[in-house]
Amino acid sequence: MEEYVIGVDVGGINTSLGLVDKAGRMIASDAFRTSDYPYFDDYEAYVERLASGIAALSEGARIQGVGIGAPAANYYTGQMEQPADLFRFRPDEAIKDPKRRYFPLCDQLEAWFPNLPIRMTNDANAAALGEMAYGAARGMRDFIMITLGTGLGSGFVAGGQMIYGRDGMAGELGHTIVEPGGRACACGRRGCLETYVSATGVRRTAFSLMATELWDSPLRAVSWENFDARILTEAAESGDPLAVETFRRTGEQLGRALANAVAITSPEAIILFGGLARAGHHLFEPTRAYMEENLLENYRGKVRLLPSALPAADAAVLGAAGVIGRPF
Amino acid sequence: MEEYVIGVDVGGINTSLGLVDKAGRMIASDAFRTSDYPYFDDYEAYVERLASGIAALSEGARIQGVGIGAPAANYYTGQMEQPADLFRFRPDEAIKDPKRRYFPLCDQLEAWFPNLPIRMTNDANAAALGEMAYGAARGMRDFIMITLGTGLGSGFVAGGQMIYGRDGMAGELGHTIVEPGGRACACGRRGCLETYVSATGVRRTAFSLMATELWDSPLRAVSWENFDARILTEAAESGDPLAVETFRRTGEQLGRALANAVAITSPEAIILFGGLARAGHHLFEPTRAYMEENLLENYRGKVRLLPSALPAADAAVLGAAGVIGRPF
Repeated sequence: MEEYVIGVDVGGINTSLGLVDKAGRMIASDAFRTSDYPYFDDYEAYVERLASGIAALSEGARIQGVGIGAPAANYYTGQMEQPADLFRFRPDEAIKDPKRRYFPLCDQLEAWFPNLPIRMTNDANAAALGEMAYGAARGMRDFIMITLGTGLGSGFVAGGQMIYGRDGMAGELGHTIVEPGGRACACGRRGCLETYVSATGVRRTAFSLMATELWDSPLRAVSWENFDARILTEAAESGDPLAVETFRRTGEQLGRALANAVAITSPEAIILFGGLARAGHHLFEPTRAYMEENLLENYRGKVRLLPSALPAADAAVLGAAGVIGRPF
Repeated sequence: MEEYVIGVDVGGINTSLGLVDKAGRMIASDAFRTSDYPYFDDYEAYVERLASGIAALSEGARIQGVGIGAPAANYYTGQMEQPADLFRFRPDEAIKDPKRRYFPLCDQLEAWFPNLPIRMTNDANAAALGEMAYGAARGMRDFIMITLGTGLGSGFVAGGQMIYGRDGMAGELGHTIVEPGGRACACGRRGCLETYVSATGVRRTAFSLMATELWDSPLRAVSWENFDARILTEAAESGDPLAVETFRRTGEQLGRALANAVAITSPEAIILFGGLARAGHHLFEPTRAYMEENLLENYRGKVRLLPSALPAADAAVLGAAGVIGRPF
């Protein structure tokens, strides 16, 4: 009888879950709105909704475990630790002690499914494990996963093992400082990589170029709020110099940062995932060129820069399933 | 009957070896000049001299293995791969093909000692393994080792495992670029961390400050060639502003680079070793302050910055022994 893994992607807006087979196919799936449970005291109801979804998917199937990708998830404790956008205190709540905002999702689900291994890590680590189980990193022991969304997430695999670090919270390449005193970051500091390389980073670069250059560009008709990586990619497709220069600068920052990361873990490949990665050669070419230019000689020409090999629509759930590993 | 490990430190000038017990004591030792074997065709004689030293130390002792720390050593292949300062071609040599300069030291020693595990890695990785076996990292699963000599070496341990990378050559924090277009580095690039943070880096900083500032300083009486970390430390001890500012800038670069490295592997501690680390609080205080200032909030106040706990004179051999691990 075939074995399956359940993957759960906890997003700020939606929670998606799926039953995944050993070929990485999603055999059945479920989804509901995380945003229907916005507040701290909605959390128990959220766990119940999630557990009933898992129970429905499991019915009649042999399940090896439940893997979860979630914001601010700590692999060691199985908790979400002060996630920025989930289960916030109500504006009128009396006690808003941030120390209470630890959500032990793994333990609580284990109470529902006592015989099932349940493991959780952050989205970027889950993406790395998904590529290792089902995608571009199959058979690799040393690689770096980069997820490009609103921010820049990362997961490092070395010697076949995910690097979780002392506290389960390793892999924050997006919050390495690449420009001391540079752009303000949501983390409260300045110059973090993700302020340059992410969907919001390219917007900041494009708008800054609108201010400093005189180039005509279709991007000048787009507001800050309407700007996204898809619009930028379309402009670059038509040769718009502002869009092309935005990608060049983005590739310069990312290429440099990757060259430095390579010097630490010496990976076989770096995998890019997310909306911005779908810009394809517009992003990959400058990134590859600047990475090679900045690599120490003995790493040059040896590190592959690859797109994710997971289908975009299912990638988050497949990544979460990868936290358990490929069913055997 | 007690078990031992043999550690071998292959340096550019001297080769040191020692018989190490489980408490990290060097029970017996041997040393000879590597520089007596300067050329490519001296290599076989070097191996013979080393093997006879190992044989002498092993006599009558139960040995669990031979660990070697050496320049450009690849853990996976057991070779020194094009080491810069060892076994060079003679100026008059006919064929100077750099591809020939791979020295399979482990295989060759295994021919002499067929039943003994023989493992080799670079000096900084060996230092990390030595701290883990006998020193400041005992019991730690996640830490970063920094060795400050002519350059800056590093070794990363994650989840209890040394990060060797795809090719056995990971851990080159000294060659991450921290100032694009900055100081020329021996590696052929510019702005590498070790051009700022190392014995030669502090000299460059001090001489640059002599040029830009008017401060009186005893360091102005010291030539470039005579300058070293000990002289700088003595000047800082007496409150010399040029020396103090040199350490502040060094700590700023090191602290920033460590904050970025912490975001990748989230270690419990960072251990500093080498001549410059013996400057003590002059180096540790600014480094700690700038590291904390640049850390992402969830890492702040959690990463210990520690000096090596190995006796300086034996540290290289104990590190090499650590490649095998503590004898049991």
